Amino acid sequence: MSNLDTLQVDDSIQLERQGSILTLWLNRPESRNAMSLNMVNAIQQVFAHIAEDTSIRAVILRGKGGHFCAGGDIKDMAGLRVEAANAGSLQPYVDFNRRFGAMIEQVDQAPQTVVAILEGAVLGGGFGLACVSDVAISRDNAQFGLPETGLGVLPAQIAPFVVKRIGLTQARRLALLGLRFNGETALKLGVVHEVASDEAALEQKLAETVQQIKRAAPLASRTTKALLHRTLNEPLDTLLDDAAQQFAQAVGGAEGQEGTMAFIQKRLPTWAMDEQ
Amino acid sequence: MSNLDTLQVDDSIQLERQGSILTLWLNRPESRNAMSLNMVNAIQQVFAHIAEDTSIRAVILRGKGGHFCAGGDIKDMAGLRVEAANAGSLQPYVDFNRRFGAMIEQVDQAPQTVVAILEGAVLGGGFGLACVSDVAISRDNAQFGLPETGLGVLPAQIAPFVVKRIGLTQARRLALLGLRFNGETALKLGVVHEVASDEAALEQKLAETVQQIKRAAPLASRTTKALLHRTLNEPLDTLLDDAAQQFAQAVGGAEGQEGTMAFIQKRLPTWAMDEQ
Amino acid sequence: MSNLDTLQVDDSIQLERQGSILTLWLNRPESRNAMSLNMVNAIQQVFAHIAEDTSIRAVILRGKGGHFCAGGDIKDMAGLRVEAANAGSLQPYVDFNRRFGAMIEQVDQAPQTVVAILEGAVLGGGFGLACVSDVAISRDNAQFGLPETGLGVLPAQIAPFVVKRIGLTQARRLALLGLRFNGETALKLGVVHEVASDEAALEQKLAETVQQIKRAAPLASRTTKALLHRTLNEPLDTLLDDAAQQFAQAVGGAEGQEGTMAFIQKRLPTWAMDEQ
Repeated sequence: MSNLDTLQVDDSIQLERQGSILTLWLNRPESRNAMSLNMVNAIQQVFAHIAEDTSIRAVILRGKGGHFCAGGDIKDMAGLRVEAANAGSLQPYVDFNRRFGAMIEQVDQAPQTVVAILEGAVLGGGFGLACVSDVAISRDNAQFGLPETGLGVLPAQIAPFVVKRIGLTQARRLALLGLRFNGETALKLGVVHEVASDEAALEQKLAETVQQIKRAAPLASRTTKALLHRTLNEPLDTLLDDAAQQFAQAVGGAEGQEGTMAFIQKRLPTWAMDEQ
Repeated sequence: MSNLDTLQVDDSIQLERQGSILTLWLNRPESRNAMSLNMVNAIQQVFAHIAEDTSIRAVILRGKGGHFCAGGDIKDMAGLRVEAANAGSLQPYVDFNRRFGAMIEQVDQAPQTVVAILEGAVLGGGFGLACVSDVAISRDNAQFGLPETGLGVLPAQIAPFVVKRIGLTQARRLALLGLRFNGETALKLGVVHEVASDEAALEQKLAETVQQIKRAAPLASRTTKALLHRTLNEPLDTLLDDAAQQFAQAVGGAEGQEGTMAFIQKRLPTWAMDEQ
Repeated sequence: MSNLDTLQVDDSIQLERQGSILTLWLNRPESRNAMSLNMVNAIQQVFAHIAEDTSIRAVILRGKGGHFCAGGDIKDMAGLRVEAANAGSLQPYVDFNRRFGAMIEQVDQAPQTVVAILEGAVLGGGFGLACVSDVAISRDNAQFGLPETGLGVLPAQIAPFVVKRIGLTQARRLALLGLRFNGETALKLGVVHEVASDEAALEQKLAETVQQIKRAAPLASRTTKALLHRTLNEPLDTLLDDAAQQFAQAVGGAEGQEGTMAFIQKRLPTWAMDEQ
């Protein structure tokens, strides 16, 4: 099991654990949590550290100071410009940009259930990160958008995750027009699953989601999440063969036995009784 | 042509034919039509039997007793537990589970137009079966859900069909939270196409759907359904080459000639005049 | 750069250029802009001619006379019938049909941002063409539909584009039932992005869309559109590698530098100041 206390992370993020739930705060409120390279690295470090830790069942991603994330960090970009000029090469930009995609992919594939709480700016890279959550809950007045083409660049690393989230039909319009939109529109487009009209409602919906996550068996949730991802890339027949093996392991395993017993005895299974 | 009268099926289902429309009732009302292995086998037997029968143009799937299907059968599972213990192997679970996926895939690929009438419980395997219908009409108060992770197991065989039906964005939340939801939410999520607020409206929508199915040419409908499925798996260029061949066959064939004639003569084509 | 003045096109279409925006009118109002082979060829000719022309940033597709496009041309079909009979072969139908798919694919992949203005009939092939626009704006009373199966034929060349646009779940019902539906339903199904309740609102929404297109950098828009398409067909890792290269090129290039400068100076970038 991981011990989060021993994990040294950059102060661009902040960790907070309550029982099986880990909250990862983006913590650069002075720049609307613009995603610096340090922040990207820190997020990757956390998800790598907890990957095998089945005692952590969910990760809540949210931002300090009323914003989720306003996109890539301008200061980092300025630094890269100097570095690229000195090197006489665009490679510094390439390496920097590619890290975003690696981080977003890692969060997408995280074994834990990932919840995104979306307030204020949810732009560019922040939008990409929101797109890989298992559950996304937004404030109605959050501001979503893909501003890249308006700045002369492209939503390079986030494009595949946006298309996977909302489909090509919506993604092409949003990216080509560089549109901004609020939480209600994000719900209609399928970016988010729920919208809250005030702070209290947001916390309430989060609490309910956490409650539901705890009612799902930890190992079965991990296996299910991985299986859902595989459905997008693998041939049906062999996937169903594997899935049948996984089903048998689950039914015959500790969770399946406890789940069946609890169902028959009309009680909550043990995994639902995390006191936090 | 198949002769349904000669087909012996298990009484876990019931068949009813009206002209070109076959209704397949799930018939275990005492257990909310929980899907037993016998029921799975019987459904497969029927779809195999009618596969080449172009006189059957649609199959209506629905449940006796006010429920569609509450998922896998608990008694079968108990039996498997004994069998697995005796065999000292999980193989009985594997084989059992895999059959569900085979059945759902068969219904998905059925040449007939498949209509699901969704009332009461539409859970687990029942949810998976609903996800492969061409037209799904739900009562507003039907209860949909993927309860598996809450029981310590996974929606193994139905995962690919759920993702294909509603996309990964919604599927991951529903499966990981084990949520239940009603017909209106099912409509918003894209699980179903229409919602009826009472029994009469449900029958009315079904009657209209059957009417529309009869206006579509039988052979053209089969070819179209197969083509739509292929678009998900095949490269565009060769698919369009094949589609052009199929178009030519249809235009030059009996249906294409009758369809053009009827259009010019402003009358219904012959295939729309099934008296039932 | 292309010179549109030197381009001779069939009068089944009409071109109109305003600065960086090209309007391509379908111009057979006497037959609700039914798509003749001449029209298919003319559309392909235009898109081929402007493919490398970065001074044209958007193409508006719309129909003269209050209709977008009612589908394939009946007269062409009659001609083909004679031709096929004379040749004793279905090949004339095959060749004719395949051209539609080639044209739709070309428009789908066009480097320009493509806007479809949908009024009146949007049927069959017209529906397929609408499905490959980057932005689709519809009148509320437009009439959408896939009537093919009712005519004894199939939506052969448009099937892949319809499934890509709205997903298999909706496509299978629409195609198998041959349903007609209006702009509001088209919005719910995801065929279109916006609906206008009258002619003035339609023009207003088009003007706003054009304004947004001009705020996006021309080269970045092209690269973004191509990248979005690639996400559907390519493995994630190598795609993200390529995307990082493209990002670096954009940031280090003229558009990226102007975009950053304009952002810092709180002014519009030069590309947004097309006076038209």
